[in-house]
Amino acid sequence: MTEVPEPRQFEQTASAPSVRQRVLVNGVESAPISPLDRGLHFGDGLFETIACHAGRPRLLSLHLDRLMHGCARLRIPFRDLAAVRAEIESLAAESERSIIKLLLTRGEATGRGYAIEGLDKAMRITIRYAWPHESPAHGQDGVKVRTLAMRLGENPLLAGLKHCNRLEQVLGRAELARTDAAEGILFSSSGRLVSGTMTNIFIVRSSSLQTPLMDRCGVAGVMRRVILREAARSGIPTQEQVLRAEDLHAADEIFLSNARVGIWPVCAVDERPLAPGPLTRRLQELMRPLLEEPRDA
Amino acid sequence: MTEVPEPRQFEQTASAPSVRQRVLVNGVESAPISPLDRGLHFGDGLFETIACHAGRPRLLSLHLDRLMHGCARLRIPFRDLAAVRAEIESLAAESERSIIKLLLTRGEATGRGYAIEGLDKAMRITIRYAWPHESPAHGQDGVKVRTLAMRLGENPLLAGLKHCNRLEQVLGRAELARTDAAEGILFSSSGRLVSGTMTNIFIVRSSSLQTPLMDRCGVAGVMRRVILREAARSGIPTQEQVLRAEDLHAADEIFLSNARVGIWPVCAVDERPLAPGPLTRRLQELMRPLLEEPRDA
Repeated sequence: MTEVPEPRQFEQTASAPSVRQRVLVNGVESAPISPLDRGLHFGDGLFETIACHAGRPRLLSLHLDRLMHGCARLRIPFRDLAAVRAEIESLAAESERSIIKLLLTRGEATGRGYAIEGLDKAMRITIRYAWPHESPAHGQDGVKVRTLAMRLGENPLLAGLKHCNRLEQVLGRAELARTDAAEGILFSSSGRLVSGTMTNIFIVRSSSLQTPLMDRCGVAGVMRRVILREAARSGIPTQEQVLRAEDLHAADEIFLSNARVGIWPVCAVDERPLAPGPLTRRLQELMRPLLEEPRDA
Repeated sequence: MTEVPEPRQFEQTASAPSVRQRVLVNGVESAPISPLDRGLHFGDGLFETIACHAGRPRLLSLHLDRLMHGCARLRIPFRDLAAVRAEIESLAAESERSIIKLLLTRGEATGRGYAIEGLDKAMRITIRYAWPHESPAHGQDGVKVRTLAMRLGENPLLAGLKHCNRLEQVLGRAELARTDAAEGILFSSSGRLVSGTMTNIFIVRSSSLQTPLMDRCGVAGVMRRVILREAARSGIPTQEQVLRAEDLHAADEIFLSNARVGIWPVCAVDERPLAPGPLTRRLQELMRPLLEEPRDA
């Protein structure tokens, strides 16, 4: 293990607290939001959380690609892609590190009730937050996770999307807050392993990389996609498949991912300790250039 | 069947189109909504749709009771019950018939992410709509329904609540729009009969009244509660239980309910015709005073 270099991608920058929060509504600061917006009434929207480093949004094309895929699946009419891209790049450029959240809803309801009337005009909110303070130990030593009692509902029509029906994550996070763990592991109603509350999960077995299929629930993370791609390019066998509790318990290595943190090794699942393993370290090294010298995709 | 009087509760009033839409945010007309509201970001809220007749909100105490129950379960801090009651009564009094929607969210986020920080201040939107135009035939002759292909996810922590994670209903309604039916019947991922897209469902078998348990998904409707109560008071055997497709197909009678329409008999499920039956008619008669001379509970 001594050959493995220390991962550095989770260092905190001193500039983080100085980032001024900015909020744009359809590109305009302080523009009003309609009380009839379908985002408010039904969670009828999508979002992206984009990590910005060195003044540039990481993996922006992949984020926008997922957003457009979600719009197509939910039939949200959104075409201002160039404007959104420019807006995010401009907000990112104002500080060394920041988190930009893009929220896109179906817009103001044209009628009462659930029906999509076909007259919708999408509404977007773009928010720039400071990069959060977080222990660099999470990336180096790993995080403790707990399996949560709450199970996610399964609906293939919503699976994979980063949509705004997030009450399950709110409740999962509340359950997690009553534990000593950094992240909670979620299973679905039929007993499938899905993800963390804000991360995707990967397990390593016999040197092959496995991650749950996102066909019944869960969010198909942008970082998850990049990890699967980079692993495959490096000759590491990868599989998206149905995984269950027994697979989690039999795993040689476990790690979590999201667009902001990159990769967090897991150092304990419930009462079972686990060492950050060699494949996890190798993938952290593979991802490092992407996280430290942000590229678009 | 000739003794059964014609139900009249679905008549349209000529005054309906004259109702002016009004929107109050925390009791104030045109008050701004925060772009950080957790309702927008996560659908982190609850709502009630209250039918108002003769200038009075129907079953208001039951609606507010369900709302407070939902607040307790989701830990939404809301205490302005008296103000909300007065607001709804005052809006209702301005017109003969209207629909008032009360939306209550956890309010502006105090941080980023899903965690409940405990500093939340609930936000409410109260909207008065005109009573919709709808065929009186729906209550008299019944409605045609179609079973939908989309299945609802199951999560006991959210079951029964009228929360704002309503993408499944949006998608269900979109599926329904491609059919000739007035309402779509939804099953859950494990094959349980749940409800319509905007109604609860009841079946009659051997003169007993059955409706799905709301323990895994679905909304425990206010009208559903009143129907169960009034049926029990009249000596009709009632059961909330697990029901499946075979129960729907074996039903002698089927009807739908919600706070606005009262009871809609079902006159066809998919290709199977069905006559509005005697128990359905009896319950319509039992409910008529409640719908026509609105009482609080």
